[in-house]
Amino acid sequence: MSDLQASTAAGQRGPAEHSIRDQIIEAADEHFSRYGYGKTTVADLAKAIGFSKAYIYKFFDSKQAIGEAICSKCLGTIVTEVHTSLAAGKSATDRLRRLLRTIAAATTDIAFSDQKLYEIASYSCAEKWPSAMAYLDEVGLILTGIVQDGRASGEFERKTPIDEAVRAIMLVFQPFMNPAMLQYNLDAVPEGANEVASLVLRSLAP
Amino acid sequence: MSDLQASTAAGQRGPAEHSIRDQIIEAADEHFSRYGYGKTTVADLAKAIGFSKAYIYKFFDSKQAIGEAICSKCLGTIVTEVHTSLAAGKSATDRLRRLLRTIAAATTDIAFSDQKLYEIASYSCAEKWPSAMAYLDEVGLILTGIVQDGRASGEFERKTPIDEAVRAIMLVFQPFMNPAMLQYNLDAVPEGANEVASLVLRSLAP
Repeated sequence: MSDLQASTAAGQRGPAEHSIRDQIIEAADEHFSRYGYGKTTVADLAKAIGFSKAYIYKFFDSKQAIGEAICSKCLGTIVTEVHTSLAAGKSATDRLRRLLRTIAAATTDIAFSDQKLYEIASYSCAEKWPSAMAYLDEVGLILTGIVQDGRASGEFERKTPIDEAVRAIMLVFQPFMNPAMLQYNLDAVPEGANEVASLVLRSLAP
Repeated sequence: MSDLQASTAAGQRGPAEHSIRDQIIEAADEHFSRYGYGKTTVADLAKAIGFSKAYIYKFFDSKQAIGEAICSKCLGTIVTEVHTSLAAGKSATDRLRRLLRTIAAATTDIAFSDQKLYEIASYSCAEKWPSAMAYLDEVGLILTGIVQDGRASGEFERKTPIDEAVRAIMLVFQPFMNPAMLQYNLDAVPEGANEVASLVLRSLAP
């Protein structure tokens, strides 16, 4: 039994538990990357990590909960990259381009640099995992902010109901946002994504 | 041996062969719908249809060739529906709306009315079957015609290079054209598709 396990067994939860949780996530991430998410059971995972199945179940309700944690971590990375990129944006126009460009590039990196993470991403979309839904909500909010700013600055038109404009843009971003679709468009990153951003900006012109 | 088989065996190819080919396609379509395309082998198919495997191979090189034939038939149906709908279009604007609406509705019908045809559609996209590629080319040509007409009539702007405009529109149509993506957007047919058409029309405004 490792120090971490021992400290948890002794009832020291909180930080210690947190660290083990991270350790399980990290090990699971590596395991799924190599052997696939769909085919792996919690028992396989436990064996590979060197923890008991029961022990893993102390931290996660199910395999999906572990997948969710990996998914959230990845989506959190994308959102951080988006915020960093947007902070350098000079105008709403520039920030809208940066939004799609960053999402397309970061999603390509995460889902396709390692083929197996694509698999978890696919499950998260297909089964509408809370992590994936929360991510879409967050991107929707960021997009709404950009459109509002562009309307305020006079860069964008104000006739279309903003909810409709944002909903439609979220739909047309899908080919570069949703891994199930992005797999067909990897050749179109970054040029195609840039052309879609241009189309969206033409649609927003006053 | 049926009359059709006998006539073919006697060397009467052409019409007779054509009819058997259709018979195989129809039976395969039904079989795949019920048991799935991925899991079925040509041997399973032969057994179910009541022809020998060798006999099926006289008409088709592979299971994919049969899948391609089914795919072509379905995509041909969509293209016919598109042409019928466009013929009633009053303007380039109206025809662009009809194009996306018809594709979204027809693809939903074909790929999702019967869950298993979705499977063949997915293979055709994922493996870039010639039938799927030819369909995309055809829709691209129809779209180019609509954009050209709208430019000529003054409905659409003329600044954006037409190739770029068409490429970007084909990308933003994907959420309603590509079955792998459409599966996530079935709730958005027809409203979401209509909002995307509106976005595209705003992008085309002079």
